[in-house]
Amino acid sequence: MQLLSRRSRYVKNIILETENRAHELISQGRKIVKLNRGDPPHYFPTPKYIIDAYIDALKEGKTFYSKAAGEKELKDAVIGRYDRMYGAQLNEEDVIITAGVSEALLFINNMLLDPGDKAVLFRPYYAQYIPRIEVEGGRVVAGRYEMESGWKLDLDGLERKLKKTGRQKGRIKYMMITNPHNPTGNVLRRKELTRLADIANEHGIVLVSDEIYDEIVYNGAKFTSMAEVARGMPHIILNGVSKNYLSTGFRVGFMIVPGEDKASVVLKKKLADYALLRLCINTPAQFAAAEAMNNTKEHGKSIKYIVKEISKRVNYSVMMLRENEHISVVAPNGSFYLLPKLDFSRLDFRSDKEFVETALNEYGVQLTRGSGFGEPSHFRIVALPPVETLDYAIRQINRMCEEHSRGMKAMATAKRKAIDENAPAAI
Amino acid sequence: MQLLSRRSRYVKNIILETENRAHELISQGRKIVKLNRGDPPHYFPTPKYIIDAYIDALKEGKTFYSKAAGEKELKDAVIGRYDRMYGAQLNEEDVIITAGVSEALLFINNMLLDPGDKAVLFRPYYAQYIPRIEVEGGRVVAGRYEMESGWKLDLDGLERKLKKTGRQKGRIKYMMITNPHNPTGNVLRRKELTRLADIANEHGIVLVSDEIYDEIVYNGAKFTSMAEVARGMPHIILNGVSKNYLSTGFRVGFMIVPGEDKASVVLKKKLADYALLRLCINTPAQFAAAEAMNNTKEHGKSIKYIVKEISKRVNYSVMMLRENEHISVVAPNGSFYLLPKLDFSRLDFRSDKEFVETALNEYGVQLTRGSGFGEPSHFRIVALPPVETLDYAIRQINRMCEEHSRGMKAMATAKRKAIDENAPAAI
Repeated sequence: MQLLSRRSRYVKNIILETENRAHELISQGRKIVKLNRGDPPHYFPTPKYIIDAYIDALKEGKTFYSKAAGEKELKDAVIGRYDRMYGAQLNEEDVIITAGVSEALLFINNMLLDPGDKAVLFRPYYAQYIPRIEVEGGRVVAGRYEMESGWKLDLDGLERKLKKTGRQKGRIKYMMITNPHNPTGNVLRRKELTRLADIANEHGIVLVSDEIYDEIVYNGAKFTSMAEVARGMPHIILNGVSKNYLSTGFRVGFMIVPGEDKASVVLKKKLADYALLRLCINTPAQFAAAEAMNNTKEHGKSIKYIVKEISKRVNYSVMMLRENEHISVVAPNGSFYLLPKLDFSRLDFRSDKEFVETALNEYGVQLTRGSGFGEPSHFRIVALPPVETLDYAIRQINRMCEEHSRGMKAMATAKRKAIDENAPAAI
Repeated sequence: MQLLSRRSRYVKNIILETENRAHELISQGRKIVKLNRGDPPHYFPTPKYIIDAYIDALKEGKTFYSKAAGEKELKDAVIGRYDRMYGAQLNEEDVIITAGVSEALLFINNMLLDPGDKAVLFRPYYAQYIPRIEVEGGRVVAGRYEMESGWKLDLDGLERKLKKTGRQKGRIKYMMITNPHNPTGNVLRRKELTRLADIANEHGIVLVSDEIYDEIVYNGAKFTSMAEVARGMPHIILNGVSKNYLSTGFRVGFMIVPGEDKASVVLKKKLADYALLRLCINTPAQFAAAEAMNNTKEHGKSIKYIVKEISKRVNYSVMMLRENEHISVVAPNGSFYLLPKLDFSRLDFRSDKEFVETALNEYGVQLTRGSGFGEPSHFRIVALPPVETLDYAIRQINRMCEEHSRGMKAMATAKRKAIDENAPAAI
């Protein structure tokens, strides 16, 4: 008997694949700089006003099951935020509270995809979208961001691809973007979004926009929410308190389905019903998340500070990486990720896997390989640590590229041999 | 284009299907006694020592992503609990932390079932197991508990059924029980469990035991964990802090796969990998859950009190229901549910749906209909409220049965007419 399901083979998480090795090295006393995970509270503590609201909820005994699609107070806070920020007029039924964007993806893939159905993602894509689709029996149709144009969406390519799919078109259920982008740090311009929305509308495909970094925008970029350009057509906005509100560990996210068209009405009802299957998400955290959004004064101070700090860290990283002749990088203007490209023709690494393993094992820097995002010539850096730490880590990366450049190969081999000869004899 | 997935049609929650109507009635000023949901913190507040640990975790800044399969501190607490209570020797890899048992079911159905695969449940089953299986394309093979024998498992029937399935047998991936039981309140005896484990083992089927009420046992019953009888064969134990530790709103549960056999090793690895897809569950709640289990002194006091109170409430409910000649009920000895049977031949309700709707709309008592548990001649009562409330609610149920007994039909119609005639004129 085959014990595991066939679909279980799609389960993977490339962002975390080096975690065990990293812990092992750390437990051996090695210094490891972790640049593999976007977890802000390690560098920017969750603001006190949010923690206080969480504690109040606990003291008030809010430890029972909440409503499945979320507590009214949190839904109202989401509605208020979208009114203030994007002029969206939402109803309670438009908002479904989820355990982070991760759970929202589960909901969407379950309620939209049958085995064999398809979803359009744009490469490079956020690593976790893929297994979530494939485990459900879905297939990915890959569109492109183009590095050459500063990570603009290749919308001509998308239109050609959709034309080619022909009678299979009906099986493409949704198209998803991440904006601001993980892993490139790119913020899409309004006219790109408008054209994307038009294409989705023309082909009857639901648009999904993951906007979890919507307030982390800098270097003069202007963020546009899909809610602003996709009015009147079925679309889903994903967001939560993890990044803007520095509360990854709460696992509080939300889905918004703003449309009043027939498809949107059916969709939001079904997504809310699906929420019933897991009863609810953590109840007291919902009250903390409501306060996080409602207290605009405290949040204003917090977000201003972190955006200033993050932009400084990202820009410093770009500057340092550009000193490396084996690397090219597009400067981000949102989120806190960079996706530098490696010139493998001039490096002696056989793959991005070998690159990140060498970085971890020999240079003490934990990165994520580009394959996870559909880009095996790249690697991802999370630019959240302080500038001094980034400075050290990127110097290490640059030194590694130097020591592993094809010209340097002979020298590196000689050096390694020398190290081996000086190593203590085995006990 | 078909917008929603075909499998989305299996989404339902019969336990909560009357929630909207109940809220509507309450907002009209009607008094409604809610006996439809097993949510202890509404009647027994989460103990202070657990809340304090939660607050400490928040103050200590534990608001980042935890490890996907759970924080070490919580895993260690689970390991300690199972050593103390059942003499189980578990390793960290055997424990996977989930957002309640609900999420554990998601994990199991995803990693074990492909569309068309089967799972054995015993009727009456906990309502939420069914949609979770069907949404994944799985099918339910129904075994039976027998009311006539006090809800014993019909294991002869199970063996006959498994023999008949013949070459389809390989597609039965797991068998699941709930012990102590929801919705009947029955605690399985050790020899039933042993025989069930032998059958599962013989047919190469993974055993899953949902033991979320394992400390809520009374009336002289003795609880046996599947972990005690299924040693050496693949099995999964489900549990969490929702019920024994009065913390439903935390959404902290766990799966235990104790086996060291090849199937168990593959299974626990894959379930832990699947956890990566949703990054983690709420982090600070995990530290609260660890303290909930570790502080055996405080927990001892709490569980002693609630078991005493719950047994009193359950036994009182049984006594009151037995005054109703249209109802038969097996006295529970675990959890806090009762599943009385209605004698529809002597009542004028056409279905359990009409029964619970009438109870809600006309008698102010919110129940769950038996169809949700595979038993359309029954209804479920949650016996958590204080005795005075249960007394009122069951008197209402008994009065309703009286007024809707076939002999009383003419009289009830006359009475309703009289009420209508005395109703105030519409404005």
